Amino acid sequence: MNDLTPFDVASNRHPSTDTLTSLLAELGNIPVVTDPTIVRRRSRDFFWYSPVLNDQLNGKSADLIVTPRDEADIIRVAAACARHRVPLTVRAGGTGNYGQAVPLAGGVLLDITALDTIEWIRPGQIRVGAGAKMNAIDAATQPSGYELRMHPSTKRTATIGGFVAGGSGGIGSINYGGLRERGNILAARVVTMEPEPRIIELRGDAAQKINRAYGTTGIITALEMPLAPAWPWIDVVVAFDDFMAAVEFGHAAALADGIVKKLLAPITWPLPSYFGALKSCCPEGKSILIAMIAEPSLESFRNLLGGRGTITLEMPTDDGPSKVPLYEYTWNHTTLQVLKSDRTVTYLQCLYPHDRLLQKVEEMRTMFPDEVLQHLEFIRFNGQLTCSGLPVVRYSDAERLNEIIRLHEAHEVHIANPHVYTVEDGSRYKRVDVDQLGFKHEVDPYGLLNPGKMRSFVAER
Amino acid sequence: MNDLTPFDVASNRHPSTDTLTSLLAELGNIPVVTDPTIVRRRSRDFFWYSPVLNDQLNGKSADLIVTPRDEADIIRVAAACARHRVPLTVRAGGTGNYGQAVPLAGGVLLDITALDTIEWIRPGQIRVGAGAKMNAIDAATQPSGYELRMHPSTKRTATIGGFVAGGSGGIGSINYGGLRERGNILAARVVTMEPEPRIIELRGDAAQKINRAYGTTGIITALEMPLAPAWPWIDVVVAFDDFMAAVEFGHAAALADGIVKKLLAPITWPLPSYFGALKSCCPEGKSILIAMIAEPSLESFRNLLGGRGTITLEMPTDDGPSKVPLYEYTWNHTTLQVLKSDRTVTYLQCLYPHDRLLQKVEEMRTMFPDEVLQHLEFIRFNGQLTCSGLPVVRYSDAERLNEIIRLHEAHEVHIANPHVYTVEDGSRYKRVDVDQLGFKHEVDPYGLLNPGKMRSFVAER
Repeated sequence: MNDLTPFDVASNRHPSTDTLTSLLAELGNIPVVTDPTIVRRRSRDFFWYSPVLNDQLNGKSADLIVTPRDEADIIRVAAACARHRVPLTVRAGGTGNYGQAVPLAGGVLLDITALDTIEWIRPGQIRVGAGAKMNAIDAATQPSGYELRMHPSTKRTATIGGFVAGGSGGIGSINYGGLRERGNILAARVVTMEPEPRIIELRGDAAQKINRAYGTTGIITALEMPLAPAWPWIDVVVAFDDFMAAVEFGHAAALADGIVKKLLAPITWPLPSYFGALKSCCPEGKSILIAMIAEPSLESFRNLLGGRGTITLEMPTDDGPSKVPLYEYTWNHTTLQVLKSDRTVTYLQCLYPHDRLLQKVEEMRTMFPDEVLQHLEFIRFNGQLTCSGLPVVRYSDAERLNEIIRLHEAHEVHIANPHVYTVEDGSRYKRVDVDQLGFKHEVDPYGLLNPGKMRSFVAER
Repeated sequence: MNDLTPFDVASNRHPSTDTLTSLLAELGNIPVVTDPTIVRRRSRDFFWYSPVLNDQLNGKSADLIVTPRDEADIIRVAAACARHRVPLTVRAGGTGNYGQAVPLAGGVLLDITALDTIEWIRPGQIRVGAGAKMNAIDAATQPSGYELRMHPSTKRTATIGGFVAGGSGGIGSINYGGLRERGNILAARVVTMEPEPRIIELRGDAAQKINRAYGTTGIITALEMPLAPAWPWIDVVVAFDDFMAAVEFGHAAALADGIVKKLLAPITWPLPSYFGALKSCCPEGKSILIAMIAEPSLESFRNLLGGRGTITLEMPTDDGPSKVPLYEYTWNHTTLQVLKSDRTVTYLQCLYPHDRLLQKVEEMRTMFPDEVLQHLEFIRFNGQLTCSGLPVVRYSDAERLNEIIRLHEAHEVHIANPHVYTVEDGSRYKRVDVDQLGFKHEVDPYGLLNPGKMRSFVAER
């Protein structure tokens, strides 16, 4: 098969029926799904948050779904796809927002959710199949007093592999920063996309080669993740007369090193008016702060609050079956809560400079009082406390959206654009990590893994 | 007894023999020690670190030691002392460095070490008698996965009451800041110094009224303290070619939010040459960084180090009986290690500005290359990462020591002077907290508790 040219994503051609037939024949008893309705439905993720991505990605679909039962199956699929030059896009929970799991040129959608085995749990560490759901991981580790350091607001359906491949942080990042911080991914095991696939163990810093690479740098089969102490968390909502008061108190709480927390999210009115089941805790006209506080720190949190705001909810976090935890009103779920009843909005992802945080938040709020509705998440980034902004944006058109992005960046508020589908365009510096690019050449010489997502990559062979 | 005037510390007079005899008669079966040799020996603490304090405090002694068995005994002692206007100074482990436990005007030395009962342990919290040793607390809480958030280097002999009353932070303050940070003392129970003593429960912010007040604001009988997750800690020593390399790496490790640590202490050569049993890990001419790293973060710590320094020790922390843990070379123990063989040195306590940290450290090092031997402790303070400096100072005389202090402050390196014995003079702003002063009037109207230590206080009655 060495006479085949590298896969050309620009052509946007799906593999031929003959190729797919040959591929299928090589998969043996590995379960596959070919029903086009199911394949199309599972080829989607939450890219529809973005009207721009919705136009670009709607209708994209794999040709078939393959559901490996274990790593041996994955090796077999990778070998067959490499030999036949069939694109392969890994999908798990499908909770990404940038089309990370959407195949641009058909081929195989690799559903890895069966790889959910917990290999071991040690104090502060877990090694687990990439398809394990994050909620299942926490349920397994909490009896021994640990939980994942951070998780997205989609924790109840998302997998650890999808989180690591799709990026980038979430509830808990106020303590540990994002997945990009050293130590937040301990190791990853990947299968290469070659006729004779290799297994590579990436340890320590090397594991960053698969972080937020959208599955383009090897098929992640297992991850070793650090764990955090599992505090008895209390969900708290505090109402404030104005948004900046919520931000200022959130900032003080974030800086209070004696108060243990996992989440601090100031959200401007009128966003809470969209918060369905939570509306009884969201007084008319009030901006809110959503927080998760360790039970032993709750009294100190109340002391710090004093008379600045009013606590409207205080109850133990519960994300068990059929529960809606408070964190499902934060991070990317804030926007989702609004989208449920208003499809005219979209959102942005901002990173505020830590040394002029409140000033810049105030500037952005003043610049776009009604068009960009502020929602912040306190996080640590490069060792500093700052905010990630996930404002809800009233969408007019792509041009105006780009203008809003430009204005943020002109004011030193960096944007990780969620309206683009490549690794590069979605990053703050519009480029791919050099290590990741080099590693992709090693593990995916034909450019078959999620083709088109790492646009800097040009296959050599 | 209301005709008695308030106790006058300036007179420096001990109570009369008659008064003491009457007092003793009222103590009933509460154990007392009157042997002058024992009383004198136990009236001391580690003030001799300071040649200045040594001149001032040497020879000061209580008249008798009273050893209450429980809080009821304490109430009885307080009542009797108040009625007879006899000074009372609380002492526990006696590990303070500023004469906190040294009675300036005789009277009763109250040894509270029998009040060591653990009332309860809950997830992340403990309530315990003030006389409990910190090592015993950790031993009791570690099986359930918790330990004290911070402790001084004297943890193996110090009590929790002495730590809270004497201040102010230590190993663990790199995560939680000092005891002064909101949430680091959850509650305190105090007995007032009145003819009819009251018991006051101070919760939350109010508990700060007894923090670092040297026992002048009530007799602390119980404390509720927050706990931290008890990681499997690894003691690590890293050797560097020069001190600033140790500081820079320590700074990077301190900022690495994905790396869990409890201690990061850069220490300049030649201080490690005094480190007795640790000398085999301290190569000639090298400055070192002493660290405690959570076992699951050790690989990331090594990744961060790269080739910048050489790890010379890496072993699990063990502060069990007859063990010398690595932290006994840090915080105030660093100076002690040197004093063991060189009594011509003393030390300072510096607080560096967080926003010009490395620059200021370099400035101080350059200004005093041989006279002030640098030893830093990374801590969090007011929500920011900075360093506490505990340099070893080659002592010439008090005048030169004051000049060194002045030069530090002129360069914006704040000094908490360890060569003075009052609460005010030892604080950075040379004043007592207003709440503490007001509270003292409430709980000690005659000024009998550790008289002379809160010099702003003037008894009203």
